Amino acid sequence: MTVSNRFTTETIIRARYAETDAQGVVHHSNYIVWFEAARSDYSRERGHSYAEFEQQGRMLMVSEIQVRYIRPTVYDQVVVVRAWIETMKSRQVVFGYEVCDAASRDTLVTGTTKHICVDRSGRVVPIPPEWRAWGDDITHDG
Amino acid sequence: MTVSNRFTTETIIRARYAETDAQGVVHHSNYIVWFEAARSDYSRERGHSYAEFEQQGRMLMVSEIQVRYIRPTVYDQVVVVRAWIETMKSRQVVFGYEVCDAASRDTLVTGTTKHICVDRSGRVVPIPPEWRAWGDDITHDG
Amino acid sequence: MTVSNRFTTETIIRARYAETDAQGVVHHSNYIVWFEAARSDYSRERGHSYAEFEQQGRMLMVSEIQVRYIRPTVYDQVVVVRAWIETMKSRQVVFGYEVCDAASRDTLVTGTTKHICVDRSGRVVPIPPEWRAWGDDITHDG
Amino acid sequence: MTVSNRFTTETIIRARYAETDAQGVVHHSNYIVWFEAARSDYSRERGHSYAEFEQQGRMLMVSEIQVRYIRPTVYDQVVVVRAWIETMKSRQVVFGYEVCDAASRDTLVTGTTKHICVDRSGRVVPIPPEWRAWGDDITHDG
Repeated sequence: MTVSNRFTTETIIRARYAETDAQGVVHHSNYIVWFEAARSDYSRERGHSYAEFEQQGRMLMVSEIQVRYIRPTVYDQVVVVRAWIETMKSRQVVFGYEVCDAASRDTLVTGTTKHICVDRSGRVVPIPPEWRAWGDDITHDG
Repeated sequence: MTVSNRFTTETIIRARYAETDAQGVVHHSNYIVWFEAARSDYSRERGHSYAEFEQQGRMLMVSEIQVRYIRPTVYDQVVVVRAWIETMKSRQVVFGYEVCDAASRDTLVTGTTKHICVDRSGRVVPIPPEWRAWGDDITHDG
Repeated sequence: MTVSNRFTTETIIRARYAETDAQGVVHHSNYIVWFEAARSDYSRERGHSYAEFEQQGRMLMVSEIQVRYIRPTVYDQVVVVRAWIETMKSRQVVFGYEVCDAASRDTLVTGTTKHICVDRSGRVVPIPPEWRAWGDDITHDG
Repeated sequence: MTVSNRFTTETIIRARYAETDAQGVVHHSNYIVWFEAARSDYSRERGHSYAEFEQQGRMLMVSEIQVRYIRPTVYDQVVVVRAWIETMKSRQVVFGYEVCDAASRDTLVTGTTKHICVDRSGRVVPIPPEWRAWGDDITHDG
């Protein structure tokens, strides 16, 4: 996976006790929430926050997620959630993520989330141009 | 606490793995969510669901909660969440709760939640009469 | 998808208010938790609960999840989470899920979760025979 | 409330989308999780993390919580969770919290949590001296 030429953000998260489960590690559903926090940071760092996106009457509805769990995370562990845009089309966007330990940089979890742009009535609509432009740095190699 | 003369509902909940934490028991924040599920059942059984309440442009905002944790709950344990109205005033209502083991009826957690009735703009407004009437079976002993 | 010849369980869940988000629908991370609740019911109905599984010193660690979101779920909506075993190997099992509206049976969400069997030290070990046998009703059509 | 003479930590939290509910604001149960994150920071900043506490075979079980909700928090809002020790006894400790908007410093939520020190078998035991000492800066005015 060559993501070095893409705009990538890094969100630092400390695992909360409430996020752990009886196995003593972070419950697998919480990485979905961490991905979302990383997505928030991505859009903010790109100059147009997701809050602004919704204020303009647009929503990104999650239509698909895929997650691979490689190593567990424990309470109080500090992780970095890297986020980037995998693909950008007129009405949908795919984000990619990598959660790694903040110290060792070992990969813990990877994943993608696909989103459809809808208006307040739920109708699929084009992604506004200022967000659409985020896909311009993606190299398409055929 | 004499609640025998009050309308009381019983909501059966099986503790989910995701609700446990690294101590091996249900995380204390989840009882707040269970109280809410019990409140939903209470209003539905009384004949006017909370969904309907919001459709009419009213919301019950939580203004205060108190919880006492007596015994822990473990994964897969089945509990009963009893709910009743403690006090009902024109613009606020207090619900009481008791979480007990479904088999032994041992009390696990007790609590109360206070709610203020607001409209969509956030202004405090009277509780509609059909909900207000739920307080009529409460005996006030001075 | 032909799942009719497989042992399939149905878990009934009422969407909690706490499970909704500011879009007014159930947050996408919660379906992962519902899948898990369905998995718990599956193993219990098969005669060996997951609680028992862990008591025997075995854990099923989630190694992969995939979810497709088709229609949203709203507060108080009652859904059925169907669960079955997609594939069973000596050290891993894949569960399949379908969340549908309890009344209309419209499909809301589908997904799969892959699990690796580990012992308390985290070492990959064979799935005990009584659970392994759950895969025996899966027809492999080439 | 005079807390100026007490050791107080400040934890900065950005409200996650997953933490909101259909009312468009942070669900009331999440402040309990934020209190816990603040407690983690408190113990770390005091020099003995809660992770270390559990490694020594001690646990702080929550026995009571009280929360007052004053103003709602919305998605992406940055808040400060202030935490301090209200009272420290040989076997129990009460933490106090104030959640305020990071920019305006308006108070959003206040609360307390009471904890009992137990060992791995669940027996109530004295709080170890290095944590016990955290209560030494509390002025008792009768």
